[in-house]
Amino acid sequence: MSKAVVLLSGGMDSATTLAIAKRGGFDCLALSFSYGQRHALELEAAKRVAKQFGARHETATIDLRAMGGSALTADIPVPKDRPLNEMGTDIPVTYVPARNTIFLSLALGWAEVTEARDIFLGVNALDYSGYPDCRPEYIAAFEQMANLGTKAGVEGKGFSVHTPLIRMTKKAIVAKGIELGVDFGMTVSCYDPAPGPLACGRCDACLLRLKAFEELGRKDPAAYR
Amino acid sequence: MSKAVVLLSGGMDSATTLAIAKRGGFDCLALSFSYGQRHALELEAAKRVAKQFGARHETATIDLRAMGGSALTADIPVPKDRPLNEMGTDIPVTYVPARNTIFLSLALGWAEVTEARDIFLGVNALDYSGYPDCRPEYIAAFEQMANLGTKAGVEGKGFSVHTPLIRMTKKAIVAKGIELGVDFGMTVSCYDPAPGPLACGRCDACLLRLKAFEELGRKDPAAYR
Repeated sequence: MSKAVVLLSGGMDSATTLAIAKRGGFDCLALSFSYGQRHALELEAAKRVAKQFGARHETATIDLRAMGGSALTADIPVPKDRPLNEMGTDIPVTYVPARNTIFLSLALGWAEVTEARDIFLGVNALDYSGYPDCRPEYIAAFEQMANLGTKAGVEGKGFSVHTPLIRMTKKAIVAKGIELGVDFGMTVSCYDPAPGPLACGRCDACLLRLKAFEELGRKDPAAYR
Repeated sequence: MSKAVVLLSGGMDSATTLAIAKRGGFDCLALSFSYGQRHALELEAAKRVAKQFGARHETATIDLRAMGGSALTADIPVPKDRPLNEMGTDIPVTYVPARNTIFLSLALGWAEVTEARDIFLGVNALDYSGYPDCRPEYIAAFEQMANLGTKAGVEGKGFSVHTPLIRMTKKAIVAKGIELGVDFGMTVSCYDPAPGPLACGRCDACLLRLKAFEELGRKDPAAYR
């Protein structure tokens, strides 16, 4: 059974990605990050999702709060009620500088240590192209760099970065997740659930998620304010 | 004055790299990592070196100990008294999986937040080629990935990763450091100074350093056991 490291944030995309990796026959290590995000709810969600899929779960600590620069880690308001057609036309304030690079780098270290050759990341470039580090050309460049910069890569046991959702719509992601048994009630997508545990229903992540469920004619099982 | 992020471990290579960046006219942010290394002495050394050169200093926390896989972070003995001609022929157990990738990724995030476009890293491929993430082709691949995966890169304000020591011998590095006023007595290169504050004089890092000073006919001002 091949080993894989799956980045698991606790949101719906990464939960679906874990389900896809499991269905692909991988023995999965789910990796989450405590990086100074506004709320730890997503880490609890990640733990539940990993457990549901029988994956080993690790949470690595990296302090990105000192770095700042994002509405997700610094004291910058999360935008609310943005029209859907405005999303993806700019790089939003929720962009965390170099976040996917930092997360993939740590996944790479874990992959090398655990002798996994496959890394799964639930990025998505279609519905929401605002983040530069969600694009296929970026992922390809990361993979190339990873294979030049690691012992395993140099020894010819190269790494592959899989992004099965990269060209899927949010609607297709939800449909795939339901097909593979993801319990979306366990997942947390909201950027700004504080102070309580309920999703705001108004940030970009909530709006895109709600729209996807609506298009499928399903009710989102997550709890909203 | 252009801003730069300089990775500063507290060892002699990164101290010389900071001196080179300062001489190059950069306004430097020196970035160190508390990553679960065996000893915190090098972080104190980094702080002293940054202060000497008037650089702002930040220490970012990343827990690589949970990941393990290296003699620098896990319970694996640091090799001692290796013949110099054996170094560089294999990848040593002091290799930390994906370390430079992880460190450069964080430097990239800090660079983006502080609007620096230049990152300095004191890697060295000539005297000690055992680490795959110290090679020029790896650095070039990182730079390419960084420019695809960041807001600043996408907006055309690309990042450059500078590795001024990459083709220098350790002897040349020490000579350059002395020329630029580096106080090598402040720096800590030893992989295994525990339990006291003194360098062991027997690990690869100590042996290469001592040889460099000897070849220059200088006394290494660091304190050895």
